Amino acid sequence: MKTLVIISHPNINESSSQQFLIQSFPQSEKITMHHLEGTYPDGQIDVKREQALLKEYDRILFQFPFYWYSSPPLLKHWFDEVLEEHFAFGYRGNKLHGKEFGLILVVGVGEKEYQTGGQEGFSISELTKPYQAIAKKIGMQYLKPLTIFQFPYMKEAQKMQLLIKYQQWVMMEKPDSLKAREVWIVNQLEETSHDTLDADESSFILDQAIEIIEDNRIELDELRMHIDNNDQ
Amino acid sequence: MKTLVIISHPNINESSSQQFLIQSFPQSEKITMHHLEGTYPDGQIDVKREQALLKEYDRILFQFPFYWYSSPPLLKHWFDEVLEEHFAFGYRGNKLHGKEFGLILVVGVGEKEYQTGGQEGFSISELTKPYQAIAKKIGMQYLKPLTIFQFPYMKEAQKMQLLIKYQQWVMMEKPDSLKAREVWIVNQLEETSHDTLDADESSFILDQAIEIIEDNRIELDELRMHIDNNDQ
Repeated sequence: MKTLVIISHPNINESSSQQFLIQSFPQSEKITMHHLEGTYPDGQIDVKREQALLKEYDRILFQFPFYWYSSPPLLKHWFDEVLEEHFAFGYRGNKLHGKEFGLILVVGVGEKEYQTGGQEGFSISELTKPYQAIAKKIGMQYLKPLTIFQFPYMKEAQKMQLLIKYQQWVMMEKPDSLKAREVWIVNQLEETSHDTLDADESSFILDQAIEIIEDNRIELDELRMHIDNNDQ
Repeated sequence: MKTLVIISHPNINESSSQQFLIQSFPQSEKITMHHLEGTYPDGQIDVKREQALLKEYDRILFQFPFYWYSSPPLLKHWFDEVLEEHFAFGYRGNKLHGKEFGLILVVGVGEKEYQTGGQEGFSISELTKPYQAIAKKIGMQYLKPLTIFQFPYMKEAQKMQLLIKYQQWVMMEKPDSLKAREVWIVNQLEETSHDTLDADESSFILDQAIEIIEDNRIELDELRMHIDNNDQ
C-alpha cells in the first residue's frame, strides 16, 4: 500500500504541531509527503502533475490546521482545480475510485468543546461533512480521521502516543486494529534490541507491549469461552 | 437595516447566475455589493478595511458558487484573515455580535440530490455546518440560506421568482414571512401603475398578488375560527 500525505499550511515553519508531525514522518519508499504551499508558492497548481501523482497512491491523507472548520485556502483551491470532471467524477471520471481518503486535522480547541452544548457546538463528524461528500462523489473510501486536539498542551507521553498513532495512520492497513498495533510493536521491539534508546522511550515501548499482550489475552479468553459454550 | 453582500467567484464574468444576481441587485443606499476577487486581484486582503466595513452593516450575506461543498479559496482566506481573535471572538471579540449571517449558494446539481440516497448524499443543512459553526463562534444569527439550484435550467418565470426572492433576501427583515411578501408586492403594484411593464412581467406580478391575497384570506379565516372557538 502506498500513501500520499498532502499537507496544507500557510506558515508551516512556525507551527510546532506540523514540525512534530514532519519529524515523526516514517522513512519509507511507500510514503510521500507533499506540502502544497511549499510546492506552489505562487498558488498556481499544476493540475496534470497532481492528477498523475494521485494515481500512484492507494491512500491519500490530507493534513492541515482546521482553521474555521475547514482547510487553508490553497487546499480548497487544489480540490477545485485537481478533482476535475472526467478525472474524479462524471463520465470516465473513475481515476480515484476505491482509493482511501483520510483527514489528519490539527485543532486548537479541546475535544470536549466539539459537541452540542460545547463551545464549538458541533462535532468533528458534523463539521467534516463536506469532505465526506467529496469522498463519496469521487468514489473514495472515507477513513476515520486522526484529529489532534491542542498539541501545545500535550505532555511528552501524549506526544509519544501521537507519534505512534500518526505512523500507524500513514503506514498501516486498518490502522486502529489490534493486529496493526501488534505489527508495529514487534517491529519496535526488534529495532530496540539493535539501537540504544533513552530511558523514556524504552519504558514507553515496553508499556505499549504490555498493553497489547493484555488485549491479546482478553481476546483469546473470549474466543475460548465462545468455543467452550459451543461444545456444551 | 443595512446589508453587505460579500461575493466570491473566481470568474464572475463567465457565470450566468452571478451576472443575473448582479443585475437583480436592488438600487439602495442601504445595500452594498462587495466582490472579493475584484477588490483583491492579488489575493492580499486588507484586514482592517474589511473589519471596518463589517461594523457598518447589520446583515452580512455571503454569495458564492458551492464548489466542492464550500466557498472558493479567496472567501476562505477572507474568513481566516478577517475574523481575528479580539475582533470576532475571544476577549473583547464582540464586534459582530447580534448581526445576521446568511449564505446565498449557487449549486450546479438538482435539489433532490442533496439528501441521503441522493447523488450528493448530504443535505445543504449538513454541508453548511462549518458556516453555522462560524456564525455561532462569532455571535451572529445564522439565517436560512437562499440556495439556487441549477440556474441554467431555469425557465423565465422561475428566474422572475428568483429575482423577487433575492431582492427580499437582500433587503427585508424576515424575508420569508407573509408580511415581507406583502410589502414587496404593494411596492411593485404601486410602481406598476407608473411604469410600463411587458406582458410577462405584469402577469407575473399579478399572479404574485393573487397568491398573497389568498394566503392572507386563509390566515384570516384561521384566526376567525380560533376566535369563534374561544367564544363558545
